[in-house]
Amino acid sequence: MQNCIFCQIVKGKIPSYKVYEDVNFFAFLDIKPRAYGHTLVIPKKHYRWVYDLEQEDFKKYWGVVLKITKALQKALNPTFITYVTHGLEIEHAHIHVVPRKNETAFVPEIKSFSKEEMEEAVKRIKIEITK
Amino acid sequence: MQNCIFCQIVKGKIPSYKVYEDVNFFAFLDIKPRAYGHTLVIPKKHYRWVYDLEQEDFKKYWGVVLKITKALQKALNPTFITYVTHGLEIEHAHIHVVPRKNETAFVPEIKSFSKEEMEEAVKRIKIEITK
Repeated sequence: MQNCIFCQIVKGKIPSYKVYEDVNFFAFLDIKPRAYGHTLVIPKKHYRWVYDLEQEDFKKYWGVVLKITKALQKALNPTFITYVTHGLEIEHAHIHVVPRKNETAFVPEIKSFSKEEMEEAVKRIKIEITK
Repeated sequence: MQNCIFCQIVKGKIPSYKVYEDVNFFAFLDIKPRAYGHTLVIPKKHYRWVYDLEQEDFKKYWGVVLKITKALQKALNPTFITYVTHGLEIEHAHIHVVPRKNETAFVPEIKSFSKEEMEEAVKRIKIEITK
Protein backbone atom coordinates (compact mmCIF):
# COMPACT_ATOMS: atom_id res chain seq x y z
CA MET A 1 0.00 0.00 0.00
CA GLN A 2 1.38 3.35 -1.10
CA ASN A 3 0.75 5.27 2.10
CA CYS A 4 1.90 2.51 4.44
CA ILE A 5 5.23 3.21 6.17
CA PHE A 6 5.94 -0.49 6.71
CA CYS A 7 5.27 -1.31 3.04
CA GLN A 8 7.80 1.43 2.17
CA ILE A 9 10.31 -0.07 4.64
CA VAL A 10 9.90 -3.52 3.04
CA LYS A 11 10.60 -1.98 -0.37
CA GLY A 12 13.65 -0.13 1.01
CA LYS A 13 12.10 3.25 0.18
CA ILE A 14 12.31 4.17 3.86
CA PRO A 15 15.50 3.08 5.66
CA SER A 16 15.29 0.73 8.64
CA TYR A 17 17.53 -1.07 11.09
CA LYS A 18 16.89 -4.40 9.35
CA VAL A 19 17.82 -7.55 11.23
CA TYR A 20 16.14 -10.24 9.10
CA GLU A 21 14.43 -10.81 5.78
CA ASP A 22 13.09 -13.84 3.95
CA VAL A 23 10.61 -14.34 1.11
CA ASN A 24 7.57 -13.49 3.22
CA PHE A 25 8.72 -11.71 6.36
CA PHE A 26 10.87 -8.79 7.42
CA ALA A 27 12.22 -7.73 10.83
CA PHE A 28 13.76 -4.45 11.97
CA LEU A 29 14.40 -2.50 15.15
CA ASP A 30 11.54 -0.35 16.41
CA ILE A 31 12.65 3.30 16.24
CA LYS A 32 10.57 3.90 19.37
CA PRO A 33 12.18 1.09 21.37
CA ARG A 34 10.83 -0.03 24.73
CA ALA A 35 14.09 -1.90 25.34
CA TYR A 36 17.46 -2.28 23.63
CA GLY A 37 16.95 -4.62 20.69
CA HIS A 38 13.15 -4.15 20.53
CA THR A 39 12.31 -5.71 17.16
CA LEU A 40 9.24 -5.56 14.92
CA VAL A 41 8.43 -8.57 12.76
CA ILE A 42 6.10 -7.95 9.83
CA PRO A 43 4.73 -9.81 6.82
CA LYS A 44 6.01 -8.25 3.59
CA LYS A 45 2.51 -8.34 2.15
CA HIS A 46 0.19 -5.76 3.62
CA TYR A 47 -2.26 -7.21 6.16
CA ARG A 48 -4.19 -5.05 8.58
CA TRP A 49 -3.88 -7.42 11.53
CA VAL A 50 -1.54 -10.24 12.48
CA TYR A 51 -4.47 -12.67 12.63
CA ASP A 52 -5.54 -11.81 9.08
CA LEU A 53 -2.87 -14.15 7.69
CA GLU A 54 -4.03 -17.61 6.65
CA GLN A 55 -3.44 -20.28 9.29
CA GLU A 56 -0.27 -21.76 7.74
CA ASP A 57 1.22 -18.33 7.06
CA PHE A 58 0.29 -17.22 10.59
CA LYS A 59 2.21 -20.21 11.96
CA LYS A 60 5.21 -19.45 9.70
CA TYR A 61 5.06 -15.84 10.91
CA TRP A 62 5.40 -16.98 14.52
CA GLY A 63 8.15 -19.36 13.42
CA VAL A 64 10.07 -16.27 12.29
CA VAL A 65 9.31 -14.61 15.64
CA LEU A 66 10.82 -17.63 17.40
CA LYS A 67 13.92 -17.41 15.21
CA ILE A 68 14.31 -13.72 16.16
CA THR A 69 13.69 -14.61 19.82
CA LYS A 70 16.50 -17.17 19.83
CA ALA A 71 18.84 -14.65 18.18
CA LEU A 72 17.92 -11.95 20.72
CA GLN A 73 18.59 -14.37 23.57
CA LYS A 74 22.09 -15.08 22.29
CA ALA A 75 22.86 -11.52 21.17
CA LEU A 76 21.58 -9.54 24.15
CA ASN A 77 21.19 -12.01 27.03
CA PRO A 78 17.78 -10.68 28.19
CA THR A 79 16.09 -11.87 31.38
CA PHE A 80 12.93 -12.59 29.40
CA ILE A 81 11.30 -11.68 26.11
CA THR A 82 7.75 -10.42 25.60
CA TYR A 83 5.52 -10.39 22.53
CA VAL A 84 2.91 -7.71 21.98
CA THR A 85 0.54 -7.04 19.13
CA HIS A 86 -1.45 -3.84 19.28
CA GLY A 87 -1.41 -2.18 15.88
CA LEU A 88 -3.38 1.04 16.16
CA GLU A 89 -0.51 3.37 15.16
CA ILE A 90 0.64 1.66 11.96
CA GLU A 91 -2.04 -0.21 10.04
CA HIS A 92 0.26 -2.98 8.82
CA ALA A 93 0.40 -6.18 10.87
CA HIS A 94 3.39 -6.24 13.23
CA ILE A 95 4.57 -8.21 16.23
CA HIS A 96 6.70 -6.51 18.88
CA VAL A 97 9.48 -8.74 20.20
CA VAL A 98 10.92 -7.06 23.28
CA PRO A 99 14.04 -8.39 25.01
CA ARG A 100 13.71 -7.39 28.64
CA LYS A 101 16.18 -7.00 31.46
CA ASN A 102 15.28 -5.29 34.70
CA GLU A 103 12.00 -3.56 33.95
CA THR A 104 8.95 -5.55 34.97
CA ALA A 105 6.21 -3.24 33.58
CA PHE A 106 3.82 -4.74 31.03
CA VAL A 107 4.93 -2.07 28.56
CA PRO A 108 8.12 -0.17 29.50
CA GLU A 109 8.57 3.48 28.56
CA ILE A 110 10.08 4.40 25.20
CA LYS A 111 13.87 4.69 25.28
CA SER A 112 16.37 6.61 23.20
CA PHE A 113 19.45 4.98 21.70
CA SER A 114 22.04 6.55 19.42
CA LYS A 115 22.41 5.53 15.78
CA GLU A 116 25.63 3.75 16.77
CA GLU A 117 23.86 1.80 19.52
CA MET A 118 21.06 0.79 17.14
CA GLU A 119 23.58 -0.32 14.52
CA GLU A 120 25.48 -2.28 17.16
CA ALA A 121 22.24 -4.08 18.12
CA VAL A 122 21.55 -4.90 14.46
CA LYS A 123 25.04 -6.29 14.06
CA ARG A 124 24.81 -8.46 17.16
CA ILE A 125 21.35 -9.79 16.32
CA LYS A 126 22.16 -10.50 12.66
CA ILE A 127 25.23 -12.55 13.58
CA GLU A 128 23.07 -14.80 15.75
CA ILE A 129 20.35 -15.18 13.12
CA THR A 130 22.70 -16.25 10.39
CA LYS A 131 24.52 -18.81 12.57
CA MET B 1 4.45 -28.66 38.81
CA GLN B 2 2.79 -28.98 42.18
CA ASN B 3 2.84 -25.33 43.18
CA CYS B 4 1.84 -23.98 39.78
CA ILE B 5 -1.69 -22.57 39.61
CA PHE B 6 -1.96 -23.15 35.86
CA CYS B 7 -0.85 -26.79 36.19
CA GLN B 8 -3.61 -27.19 38.80
CA ILE B 9 -6.13 -25.58 36.44
CA VAL B 10 -5.14 -27.98 33.64
CA LYS B 11 -5.70 -30.91 36.01
CA GLY B 12 -9.08 -29.51 37.08
CA LYS B 13 -7.93 -29.16 40.70
CA ILE B 14 -8.60 -25.43 40.51
CA PRO B 15 -11.77 -24.42 38.66
CA SER B 16 -11.54 -22.18 35.59
CA TYR B 17 -13.76 -20.61 32.95
CA LYS B 18 -12.53 -23.09 30.35
CA VAL B 19 -13.24 -22.28 26.71
CA TYR B 20 -11.03 -24.82 24.92
CA GLU B 21 -8.94 -27.92 25.48
CA ASP B 22 -7.06 -30.33 23.23
CA VAL B 23 -4.27 -32.85 23.80
CA ASN B 24 -1.57 -30.22 24.30
CA PHE B 25 -3.24 -26.89 25.00
CA PHE B 26 -5.84 -25.36 27.29
CA ALA B 27 -7.65 -21.99 27.19
CA PHE B 28 -9.68 -20.21 29.85
CA LEU B 29 -10.87 -16.73 30.75
CA ASP B 30 -8.45 -14.57 32.72
CA ILE B 31 -9.99 -13.89 36.15
CA LYS B 32 -8.31 -10.47 36.03
CA PRO B 33 -9.73 -9.54 32.62
CA ARG B 34 -8.56 -6.47 30.72
CA ALA B 35 -11.62 -6.82 28.46
CA TYR B 36 -14.74 -8.96 28.26
CA GLY B 37 -13.66 -12.34 26.89
CA HIS B 38 -9.95 -11.90 27.75
CA THR B 39 -8.59 -15.42 27.31
CA LEU B 40 -5.37 -17.12 28.37
CA VAL B 41 -3.98 -19.90 26.19
CA ILE B 42 -1.47 -22.23 27.85
CA PRO B 43 0.42 -25.42 27.07
CA LYS B 44 -0.73 -28.25 29.35
CA LYS B 45 2.86 -29.19 30.01
CA HIS B 46 4.70 -26.79 32.27
CA TYR B 47 7.04 -24.45 30.41
CA ARG B 48 8.44 -21.30 31.97
CA TRP B 49 8.18 -19.18 28.82
CA VAL B 50 6.12 -19.33 25.64
CA TYR B 51 9.31 -19.49 23.55
CA ASP B 52 10.61 -22.51 25.49
CA LEU B 53 8.39 -24.80 23.41
CA GLU B 54 10.07 -26.60 20.51
CA GLN B 55 9.57 -24.88 17.16
CA GLU B 56 6.79 -27.15 15.88
CA ASP B 57 4.95 -27.05 19.21
CA PHE B 58 5.38 -23.28 19.34
CA LYS B 59 3.72 -23.03 15.92
CA LYS B 60 0.89 -25.35 17.00
CA TYR B 61 0.46 -23.20 20.11
CA TRP B 62 -0.07 -20.12 17.96
CA GLY B 63 -2.39 -22.18 15.75
CA VAL B 64 -4.57 -22.64 18.84
CA VAL B 65 -4.35 -18.90 19.54
CA LEU B 66 -5.63 -18.25 16.00
CA LYS B 67 -8.51 -20.67 16.57
CA ILE B 68 -9.44 -18.80 19.76
CA THR B 69 -9.05 -15.46 17.92
CA LYS B 70 -11.53 -16.51 15.22
CA ALA B 71 -13.99 -17.70 17.86
CA LEU B 72 -13.67 -14.43 19.81
CA GLN B 73 -14.30 -12.46 16.61
CA LYS B 74 -17.54 -14.32 15.98
CA ALA B 75 -18.65 -14.50 19.61
CA LEU B 76 -17.92 -10.96 20.78
CA ASN B 77 -17.48 -8.85 17.65
CA PRO B 78 -14.41 -6.95 18.90
CA THR B 79 -12.90 -4.01 17.02
CA PHE B 80 -9.50 -5.70 17.21
CA ILE B 81 -7.68 -8.38 19.17
CA THR B 82 -4.30 -8.07 20.85
CA TYR B 83 -1.82 -10.70 21.96
CA VAL B 84 0.47 -10.16 24.93
CA THR B 85 3.01 -12.40 26.60
CA HIS B 86 4.56 -11.14 29.80
CA GLY B 87 4.62 -13.93 32.35
CA LEU B 88 6.13 -12.56 35.53
CA GLU B 89 3.10 -13.22 37.77
CA ILE B 90 2.49 -16.88 36.93
CA GLU B 91 5.55 -18.89 35.96
CA HIS B 92 3.76 -21.11 33.44
CA ALA B 93 3.84 -20.01 29.79
CA HIS B 94 0.66 -18.16 28.77
CA ILE B 95 -0.56 -16.00 25.92
CA HIS B 96 -3.12 -13.27 26.59
CA VAL B 97 -5.71 -12.98 23.82
CA VAL B 98 -7.64 -9.78 24.42
CA PRO B 99 -10.72 -8.87 22.35
CA ARG B 100 -10.86 -5.09 22.31
CA LYS B 101 -13.62 -2.61 21.65
CA ASN B 102 -13.25 1.05 22.45
CA GLU B 103 -10.17 1.23 24.62
CA THR B 104 -7.00 2.04 22.74
CA ALA B 105 -4.46 1.69 25.59
CA PHE B 106 -1.67 -0.85 25.11
CA VAL B 107 -2.87 -2.63 28.25
CA PRO B 108 -6.34 -1.62 29.49
CA GLU B 109 -7.15 -1.58 33.20
CA ILE B 110 -8.44 -4.74 34.89
CA LYS B 111 -12.24 -5.05 34.78
CA SER B 112 -14.76 -6.83 36.96
CA PHE B 113 -17.44 -9.09 35.52
CA SER B 114 -19.99 -11.17 37.42
CA LYS B 115 -19.88 -14.98 37.46
CA GLU B 116 -22.92 -14.91 35.15
CA GLU B 117 -21.18 -12.58 32.70
CA MET B 118 -18.06 -14.76 32.67
CA GLU B 119 -20.17 -17.90 32.12
CA GLU B 120 -22.03 -16.16 29.32
CA ALA B 121 -18.70 -15.31 27.64
CA VAL B 122 -17.54 -18.95 27.98
CA LYS B 123 -20.79 -20.15 26.41
CA ARG B 124 -20.58 -17.74 23.48
CA ILE B 125 -16.90 -18.48 22.79
CA LYS B 126 -17.27 -22.26 23.07
CA ILE B 127 -20.12 -22.33 20.57
CA GLU B 128 -17.90 -20.61 18.02
CA ILE B 129 -14.91 -22.88 18.66
CA THR B 130 -16.84 -26.08 18.24
CA LYS B 131 -18.51 -24.96 15.01
